[in-house]
Amino acid sequence: MRTIVKRHTDPDRAQHRRDQVLDAAAICFARSGFHGASMAKISRQAGMSAGHIYNYFASKDAIVMAFIALRVEHINDRLGNLGKQADPLEYMCAEIDAIVDKHLAPAFWGMALEIFAEAARNDTVAAALQAADTDARERLRALIVRSRAQRGLAADQHTVDGRICAMRALFDGLSLRMLQDPGVARDDLVDACRIALRALLLT
Amino acid sequence: MRTIVKRHTDPDRAQHRRDQVLDAAAICFARSGFHGASMAKISRQAGMSAGHIYNYFASKDAIVMAFIALRVEHINDRLGNLGKQADPLEYMCAEIDAIVDKHLAPAFWGMALEIFAEAARNDTVAAALQAADTDARERLRALIVRSRAQRGLAADQHTVDGRICAMRALFDGLSLRMLQDPGVARDDLVDACRIALRALLLT
Repeated sequence: MRTIVKRHTDPDRAQHRRDQVLDAAAICFARSGFHGASMAKISRQAGMSAGHIYNYFASKDAIVMAFIALRVEHINDRLGNLGKQADPLEYMCAEIDAIVDKHLAPAFWGMALEIFAEAARNDTVAAALQAADTDARERLRALIVRSRAQRGLAADQHTVDGRICAMRALFDGLSLRMLQDPGVARDDLVDACRIALRALLLT
Repeated sequence: MRTIVKRHTDPDRAQHRRDQVLDAAAICFARSGFHGASMAKISRQAGMSAGHIYNYFASKDAIVMAFIALRVEHINDRLGNLGKQADPLEYMCAEIDAIVDKHLAPAFWGMALEIFAEAARNDTVAAALQAADTDARERLRALIVRSRAQRGLAADQHTVDGRICAMRALFDGLSLRMLQDPGVARDDLVDACRIALRALLLT
């Protein structure tokens, strides 16, 4: 009896199968777009029988939600690390090359673009993206307000929220730039992003 | 004889029909994504019989190319106007509110997001986007090099290309921000974008 229960609820195994589905979905979305990738195709790519996928995800929306949850986890890790720095604003400016490199990597933005395009027509996906963003923004705001106030810089919500939005637009936009201008010299772009970031955070 | 020839080649009428197809395609892409919108569905949306659409566009790729051509036309208009200004760099900083407003409008970025997502998996679309971008970048570079040199600012290609790329990433990224943070105060965002733009263009 115990063995049977274990077989059905083993969390490692379930997580492994969920990861398999997410890997397969990433491949199918990249190949055919969100609407071209059916649950049957994703099952097949994951090496599962057609109905099996529904044990892990109720729908394609649920798969997209899982990708958004992964994004949230990743952002939270970064924000946790940022919060441990003695000077978060200088740290961000110093780390700009790593931030740029990450946003230029197709593996990072391929799925994000698909999710953004879907959010533009799917309120459930848009709401999940926005909830994730609100959390990240509030954590980032608290860090930036404290660091700017310590420097005697304007730290009211209008100033800080506008700058957070512009900074994140710059980073999000790097992925769209790469599609249009893949030949840009990475070092030149890093230098320019650092100039924009210093102006936004440290003035 | 003349009438018959005219009926088949009247450029206004053909252009009108092409515009009808593009309007219909924008609606279908927004509803179902590029891969979910078939040529048959686009025909129906445009009020045409199923095969009729092929008189105007050979494929969905050809429709996307027409959208990219419209984008190029729009960018060329803006660059033409910028070139007429006595001080193009100050003009861009002064006009930042109009640039931000345009990039925040869903009508502007809805189709762009669809095209970007498709470019990530379709080399023909990516190549067309990149060719359009190269033209715009070269025109923008010539303007910025001249204006920066007049001010005694660094105007070498490394400096200028990095800054053009960062500036355009910021603008392109505004559309992605709007999907995630639609509540941002527009005036705060305009102020922040102006700060970043002044740092990129005028320092």
